[in-house]
Amino acid sequence: MNTLTKLALPVALIALPGLATAEGESQFATLADTTFIFNTLLFLIGGFLVFWMAAGFAMLEAGLVRSKNVSMQLIKNVALFSIAAIMYWIIGYNVMYPGDGNWLIEGVFGTITPKDIKSEIDSGGYSNASDFFFQLMFVATTASIVSGTLAERIKLWPFLIFTVVLTGLIYPIEASWQWGGGWLSAAGFSDFAGSTLVHAAGGFAALAGALILGPRIGKYKDGRTIPMPGSNLALATLGTFILWLGWFGFNGASQLAMGTISDVDAVAQIFANTNMAAAAGAIVALVLTQILYKKPDLTMVLNGALAGLVSITAGPLDPTLFGALWIGAVGGVIVVFAVPLLDKLKIDDVVGAIPVHLLAGIWGTMVVPVYTADASFATQALGVIAIGAFVFVISLIVWAVLKATVGIRVDEEAEINGLDMAELGMEAYPEFTNG
Amino acid sequence: MNTLTKLALPVALIALPGLATAEGESQFATLADTTFIFNTLLFLIGGFLVFWMAAGFAMLEAGLVRSKNVSMQLIKNVALFSIAAIMYWIIGYNVMYPGDGNWLIEGVFGTITPKDIKSEIDSGGYSNASDFFFQLMFVATTASIVSGTLAERIKLWPFLIFTVVLTGLIYPIEASWQWGGGWLSAAGFSDFAGSTLVHAAGGFAALAGALILGPRIGKYKDGRTIPMPGSNLALATLGTFILWLGWFGFNGASQLAMGTISDVDAVAQIFANTNMAAAAGAIVALVLTQILYKKPDLTMVLNGALAGLVSITAGPLDPTLFGALWIGAVGGVIVVFAVPLLDKLKIDDVVGAIPVHLLAGIWGTMVVPVYTADASFATQALGVIAIGAFVFVISLIVWAVLKATVGIRVDEEAEINGLDMAELGMEAYPEFTNG
Amino acid sequence: MNTLTKLALPVALIALPGLATAEGESQFATLADTTFIFNTLLFLIGGFLVFWMAAGFAMLEAGLVRSKNVSMQLIKNVALFSIAAIMYWIIGYNVMYPGDGNWLIEGVFGTITPKDIKSEIDSGGYSNASDFFFQLMFVATTASIVSGTLAERIKLWPFLIFTVVLTGLIYPIEASWQWGGGWLSAAGFSDFAGSTLVHAAGGFAALAGALILGPRIGKYKDGRTIPMPGSNLALATLGTFILWLGWFGFNGASQLAMGTISDVDAVAQIFANTNMAAAAGAIVALVLTQILYKKPDLTMVLNGALAGLVSITAGPLDPTLFGALWIGAVGGVIVVFAVPLLDKLKIDDVVGAIPVHLLAGIWGTMVVPVYTADASFATQALGVIAIGAFVFVISLIVWAVLKATVGIRVDEEAEINGLDMAELGMEAYPEFTNG
Repeated sequence: MNTLTKLALPVALIALPGLATAEGESQFATLADTTFIFNTLLFLIGGFLVFWMAAGFAMLEAGLVRSKNVSMQLIKNVALFSIAAIMYWIIGYNVMYPGDGNWLIEGVFGTITPKDIKSEIDSGGYSNASDFFFQLMFVATTASIVSGTLAERIKLWPFLIFTVVLTGLIYPIEASWQWGGGWLSAAGFSDFAGSTLVHAAGGFAALAGALILGPRIGKYKDGRTIPMPGSNLALATLGTFILWLGWFGFNGASQLAMGTISDVDAVAQIFANTNMAAAAGAIVALVLTQILYKKPDLTMVLNGALAGLVSITAGPLDPTLFGALWIGAVGGVIVVFAVPLLDKLKIDDVVGAIPVHLLAGIWGTMVVPVYTADASFATQALGVIAIGAFVFVISLIVWAVLKATVGIRVDEEAEINGLDMAELGMEAYPEFTNG
Repeated sequence: MNTLTKLALPVALIALPGLATAEGESQFATLADTTFIFNTLLFLIGGFLVFWMAAGFAMLEAGLVRSKNVSMQLIKNVALFSIAAIMYWIIGYNVMYPGDGNWLIEGVFGTITPKDIKSEIDSGGYSNASDFFFQLMFVATTASIVSGTLAERIKLWPFLIFTVVLTGLIYPIEASWQWGGGWLSAAGFSDFAGSTLVHAAGGFAALAGALILGPRIGKYKDGRTIPMPGSNLALATLGTFILWLGWFGFNGASQLAMGTISDVDAVAQIFANTNMAAAAGAIVALVLTQILYKKPDLTMVLNGALAGLVSITAGPLDPTLFGALWIGAVGGVIVVFAVPLLDKLKIDDVVGAIPVHLLAGIWGTMVVPVYTADASFATQALGVIAIGAFVFVISLIVWAVLKATVGIRVDEEAEINGLDMAELGMEAYPEFTNG
Repeated sequence: MNTLTKLALPVALIALPGLATAEGESQFATLADTTFIFNTLLFLIGGFLVFWMAAGFAMLEAGLVRSKNVSMQLIKNVALFSIAAIMYWIIGYNVMYPGDGNWLIEGVFGTITPKDIKSEIDSGGYSNASDFFFQLMFVATTASIVSGTLAERIKLWPFLIFTVVLTGLIYPIEASWQWGGGWLSAAGFSDFAGSTLVHAAGGFAALAGALILGPRIGKYKDGRTIPMPGSNLALATLGTFILWLGWFGFNGASQLAMGTISDVDAVAQIFANTNMAAAAGAIVALVLTQILYKKPDLTMVLNGALAGLVSITAGPLDPTLFGALWIGAVGGVIVVFAVPLLDKLKIDDVVGAIPVHLLAGIWGTMVVPVYTADASFATQALGVIAIGAFVFVISLIVWAVLKATVGIRVDEEAEINGLDMAELGMEAYPEFTNG
């Protein structure tokens, strides 16, 4: 603790302009101050909740891969978050928010205009540092989505190089189109907390990687899909609960303000809707798997909840609770049908990130106009197509270049013995696994 | 993030009545606004902390069952939370808070009077949506308590049907007696955050289920109790820490306001007392098991901490830290002696939820008058008996009906092989377990 | 929930002096109230985040020990937190903040002057209960550091006795020198959130214990260090993420105030810097282990992130993001080189707590003057030496006395079979481990 600050506090109070004067009214809190503090606090609370999602992805993925690849999944998740934190500071944040007159190509590609997060005031009435902290967590989420799909066969370093490009350039550029005040926001695209900008984008990058990387050895054999069950469903469930918790910050703090009654009430409605969508997604997946397979499927239920969350992310404020319910429910339906479909297409998505983040993300974006008056299906489609094409094509190129140069896939022996021993020489559960 | 909102922020500020005028005083924050924002924020922070308890119950229970039943415990916990979220919205919330003149039977059973959480203002000065979000988490907690006791032998769907009734009707009705302004609150019953309304109620529902369901095969053999150790104590410990953390929101946010110095100070004292009670319960269980069994028992220590938390929940504000210490300590004593006692009675409570939530809940409720002037032992006893009788009898009936119709117990083979394979066809740790 | 409060709320509002009068200005929030509420809220949020670190240490340590010692590590972590909560209340808090004129030896050793956390107001403008709650979590952190180093061979009760002394006296005394307004703060020592007062102090206590206790059987054999890999790296990674999250509260809330724009902006900058330092520490450890060992080391990456966090803790406010980056990066370097060095010295530190908390803590303290104008290297060195000597010598004496009396180490057979069976008679993973 900071004694100086502590001892200085009363002084600080006295030092406040308001208190310095003898006027009666000077004893009151100014609206500018309380608004600034409330808004900044929202960013900080939202930020640490979204940070927590990084742990959620790590646990979910570690639980859904086989034990021989768990250490690899863990190190990838810690490393990708760290890379995101650094790259977003070096380039990303600046490219994403060029500000007026700092576009290289107006509304499309911003110049790198370093921001000074040491200067307190922002036109929006919050601390720049809190905004940076909050925005940073979203780019990390985008990167987390990719790591799950490509698990159990990708090399560590090429994956991390891709993460550098994704977090430093790909995400910041497409996000600048909307949140940086670029051409998509000008066109009227509506994506409140990022069903498309974050989740579908991460999903497109993952899909590109999956296509270039190919499926795991033995996953698809003479027309059949061989199940490769996750090694720790308790961990996967924990990861899902962590993501669910973090999502309150992801969607709620995207209101970007809580200094007025209407803003904080909006945050509260977003919390309630976000929770409802997740619950609906989980229940639908539970019932559907019972009907389709005669037995409920835990991993489908977990992905159903996550798909519900992704579905409501593009418009968590305007729907009623009933709206959040059916929007999330459809997310659950998408997951249950898309997971086997991807296998038919021999696209090997280890944790189901493409159905959850890409498909439910598109659904969530397209359904926005139902409850949001000033959104249109055409513009929503435009946004999805533009961002999808951009992220998918650039990712495809980056993955292809990596494959052609350093190579992105471990050799067959390494894949069969597990990436933990091959890439790290370190098992996650050295004493547990049989044989 | 919501660009519109973001760009609109300065405008929004300008648009505020206060700022619209040119008068000097208009630059100040109104007490009504700051109070509304602080109160709503308390509900939101408390709400996400109590949400987190759902993950705590899931991890605690998954860690205390044998590995062959872990997936089942996990799917039950995700599903029951989701059901609670939906049922409480459809019926529960409306039945629990009928409001004046909307009682079917005055103070006993409310009519279903749909609430509009889209309307901001509440007489209490907070967002209705935030209140709904917070209250919702409490009904989920009640349901979580039941799942632990009945683990390792109950069928999934009958359990979920019971959850529908518990979260849609049983809990909302008994809770309306107190928190809905019903006959118990009129009688002067005092249960700050729910030692009886939430924890004992969940415990009574669990007890009823345990009696109808019967013990696990081989648990009680010629007078002896056969230990069936949990499969993952690291997970159980994690679950306990999660619950401990969530409890700060459970008790603290039950102050329902932090817009004044005295309210926020009350929240702070509740945090300190809640922590003290948990610590005392854990230490007492540690010392007692060392004395009684010559070796400390980790699961008893975990349950001791939880019992300490339940014990302080009925009155976390009024006691001194020393009061919280001995109230929590007695909770620890209760657990250490009640767990073997239940086994003597051949009541098979897999995770010890009955001692922790039912018995410590009653203790916590009865001890309230010691520190709370306007509470009386007679009224506290009345509340415990009334709620206990209501929840226990109704639960008994529902369980009996389920048993007579769909059946509530898996067949012997399924129980021996584990519910994971029998009910889900999916192991939680497919690579770990020996044999 | 507290109906009384709920129903009483509107009344409470009316009852407020401001609203009691009919004057127009009386409708505004006073600066004293909002400051008090914001400051108290910061302590509460910071407090529950730092509480969460106790779970982080438990998971990290449980994951880094072998499965036969996991239950022991878990019970130690729950027990030490509980002891810290009780001892800090009985003695610690009073000794740490004697207040003017209550020093037994001026600025060095305070008298036990019981505090009344029931009285709302503090000169600093926050709830005393919230301050107690927050400070309490720091002493628990100090104790958590010790348990990791001494794992897999120490007896439970002697460890807990040491914890009693550490949390009741050792930490409170040295912390009073700075945060209690003692001689070190008078000398101008600067340690914002406790790189030395908390982390290095815990590390010195751990080092003293490791020297007296000696290494695990078979750890050092004819000049070679035998690796004893942790049993659950998923758990260790979860623990690291938990600690990372908790650290935002640890450093951020140490600003001790957020009732003004500059205070809340400071908290935001601390969040951003704390995150950056952790990311840098992780990446440096990743790259260094790749270069040195040709394979990246997950446990080093985890400890690198933690070392980055410890490094920025002494001065998280003043550095730029670039400053946080290189300060955290050096922390990562320290870990990678210090871990093998300790093994060379045959100091057996099971989880690497000495490099992470002691060495990175010293580094973080010494680097403060680079960005903090009013700090000097000489005074920083003085603080490190004074606190180090005090904590190390007293700890050495306490450990020696415990060894000479009750004994601190389990017998050889118990150590080989594992402490779980020997000390608790209870395995953490009874169904998983091979053989």
